[in-house]
Amino acid sequence: MRLSRSFLPTLKENPAEAQIVSHRLMLRAGLIRQTASGIYAWLPAGLKVLRNISQIVREEQDRIGAQEVLMPTLQSADLWKRSGRYDAYGPEMLRIQDRHKRELLYGPTNEEMITDLFGQAVKSYKDLPQMLYHIQWKFRDEVRPRFGVMRGREFLMKDAYSFDLDYDSAVATYRRMLLAYLRTFQRLGVRAVPMRADTGPIGGELSHEFLILAPTGESGVFYDAALEEQDWLDEPVNVGDPKALEVFYKRVTTPYAATDEMHDTAAWDAVPEDRRREGRGVEVGHIFHFGTKYTQSMDVTVSGPEGTPVYPEMGSYGIGVSRLAGAIIEASHDDAGIIWPDAVAPFRAVIINLKVGDETCDAMCEQIYNTNIEAFLYDDRTDRAGAKFADADLMGHPWQIVVGPRSAKEGRVELKRRATGERKEVSVEDALALVLAD
Amino acid sequence: MRLSRSFLPTLKENPAEAQIVSHRLMLRAGLIRQTASGIYAWLPAGLKVLRNISQIVREEQDRIGAQEVLMPTLQSADLWKRSGRYDAYGPEMLRIQDRHKRELLYGPTNEEMITDLFGQAVKSYKDLPQMLYHIQWKFRDEVRPRFGVMRGREFLMKDAYSFDLDYDSAVATYRRMLLAYLRTFQRLGVRAVPMRADTGPIGGELSHEFLILAPTGESGVFYDAALEEQDWLDEPVNVGDPKALEVFYKRVTTPYAATDEMHDTAAWDAVPEDRRREGRGVEVGHIFHFGTKYTQSMDVTVSGPEGTPVYPEMGSYGIGVSRLAGAIIEASHDDAGIIWPDAVAPFRAVIINLKVGDETCDAMCEQIYNTNIEAFLYDDRTDRAGAKFADADLMGHPWQIVVGPRSAKEGRVELKRRATGERKEVSVEDALALVLAD
Repeated sequence: MRLSRSFLPTLKENPAEAQIVSHRLMLRAGLIRQTASGIYAWLPAGLKVLRNISQIVREEQDRIGAQEVLMPTLQSADLWKRSGRYDAYGPEMLRIQDRHKRELLYGPTNEEMITDLFGQAVKSYKDLPQMLYHIQWKFRDEVRPRFGVMRGREFLMKDAYSFDLDYDSAVATYRRMLLAYLRTFQRLGVRAVPMRADTGPIGGELSHEFLILAPTGESGVFYDAALEEQDWLDEPVNVGDPKALEVFYKRVTTPYAATDEMHDTAAWDAVPEDRRREGRGVEVGHIFHFGTKYTQSMDVTVSGPEGTPVYPEMGSYGIGVSRLAGAIIEASHDDAGIIWPDAVAPFRAVIINLKVGDETCDAMCEQIYNTNIEAFLYDDRTDRAGAKFADADLMGHPWQIVVGPRSAKEGRVELKRRATGERKEVSVEDALALVLAD
Repeated sequence: MRLSRSFLPTLKENPAEAQIVSHRLMLRAGLIRQTASGIYAWLPAGLKVLRNISQIVREEQDRIGAQEVLMPTLQSADLWKRSGRYDAYGPEMLRIQDRHKRELLYGPTNEEMITDLFGQAVKSYKDLPQMLYHIQWKFRDEVRPRFGVMRGREFLMKDAYSFDLDYDSAVATYRRMLLAYLRTFQRLGVRAVPMRADTGPIGGELSHEFLILAPTGESGVFYDAALEEQDWLDEPVNVGDPKALEVFYKRVTTPYAATDEMHDTAAWDAVPEDRRREGRGVEVGHIFHFGTKYTQSMDVTVSGPEGTPVYPEMGSYGIGVSRLAGAIIEASHDDAGIIWPDAVAPFRAVIINLKVGDETCDAMCEQIYNTNIEAFLYDDRTDRAGAKFADADLMGHPWQIVVGPRSAKEGRVELKRRATGERKEVSVEDALALVLAD
């Protein structure tokens, strides 16, 4: 994208309404704009981030055999009356009346709807297990929305739901999803530590939340360093083998990890001192096994191996996709701005033309830009160099390719890595090879 | 996707509630399920169709320099009060109160919001023209939702908005978009004829709607056959050159084309008889130039070339993405089911295993399936052949690869083209080359 033609409005000043760093930086870098309290529009660069996150989430869900659907944002209140949650849910549910005075609501979650869709389609235990997910906008009418997309009202979430014939099979599904989550967060360039969680209003007996370490996190976290050292992308776990899943699960759940709500100081003291990690964490995912709560309350059965009806065991598994855009910034920034992990960045690199109008600079920038116009933001504005460098740091592109008249004549550019600040002069070919490497 | 493991519930019977063929076939082929009146969930195969359509729409918008954003589904009523449309809009607008009794609405369209976002970001005529679009769910509270996704309440729409400094530039933008639309529909495998339209409640002076021919269309259409003969994908129009756009525009608008509302029988009689085409049409797109209506009512200006404030000229440009899924089926089906155009089909081909359990058949099916698991639906169910053929025709995959024990032994399959019914026995290699060709 050419910056001179793009809808990428950066701000020099810190917006007064933004209290935390991710909110400030998302506004300043032109990623989002608030359109109503707790409701945001995603501008072109922000939408690219949102889509990059969604795509990684999607690939890891598909990898374990979950199937993507898309449920609507609005739901009939009747569905929620069937499960008994309509009256139980508090004022965070946005309740709506249509022109015929029928009660609708903006979905805050989809257990009821997916259970109903499953029940219409699946009749036999032979068609189990099933995992279905969607990535869709949801609404929770927070009493005091704040922190930008970290606690917005309209937010994008991946929610998955599983249906299994029995408890053992459901536990294997739960472990499969736990692995998918660890891989997802690692691919997003952040470490999220799974912590045993209270199952809360969704109910159920088995639950983990995933927290990204960030100073502005809403919870205190305590965990064994072992949990951030494992490379889950390189670790082959056979997700079809319950035994392999059990071994994997033990490895993840044996080291100590807890939020302050669940903290056990005696167990904590038993962790060797040099392995203790303490900090604040932002919740970005949450997984639950809750058994037959919804299949029973909504009376959804399949015919079992003996021909008698069986209530399938369910779990639900959420990832806050729009929240992650903020959480990643909370975990990855400096005083100058955002430091995007490569996999999430809206552009791989910015091409900074230090002398727009200079024939050599212009030609070299165009040459680089045209090798892959999707990967590059081309800063072709006539602004002074300082402003361009400041915007590049603020927007957080993983690489900056700086094209100045002197080095351009020699076919060279200055390449800066945003995360480390390291700079080196290299040939155009070497710069492209580094920036476009996978 | 393996059909035995997939969430693809086909129906043998015609659902009673479905009055038109696309609605019947979308339910029967397991693409959608209704979750509330006029509100649908998209099951895995349906979502693939929706995403294929969206991606083609996106690529053609990007091609003419439009930039993608994502505005939220819910809007503040205040925005609509600024433009004066809040009270003017009828009961089709879904009005909502949040927990603080603030008025929200589920966006039926986004002129107000985009004008506000534009005004916050763009200050100078030098940053014009701008084209912004998004693909987002919208809501219109139809009094009698029907015809499935063709007249649903929650629907997916691409809406683009343009901002130009003056009328001439706005007209060039309008023509650029007209070309993008012709290319988009052609890539989707349907012919949509542009017809001069009444500008209606959006206002303005220049407007075309795009209609796909289908017997169940809501409007009568009359047009010169010249309009369906042009190949817009092969036709290089320089979209940067206003003169080239003018020549293009004349070619599109000179031949006669009108819906029954705008029909002019005298002009129609002047069309040579062998070139007259009459039928019914489904509206799938609508483009408007409406000038300064919203920039004036919302008082959004940029500083002009002389330093004085100027109200930018606007246009808006819609494509009904979810409606298109139905409209394409209306235009492309037979008694046995859907006939998907290649570019839209959820799968390129179904692999029909005629003898599941037979070693040769199973091995060959797996071999084909594993060459590209995204492209294929593998019918690995133990059902009888007749049921598999019927489902394949119903679901409308462009190709059927039939693997039976006799021909499999010779490394051959039967390949059927859904659109023509043509069948031939070919080698596996030739089948793959044909099916996966672009």
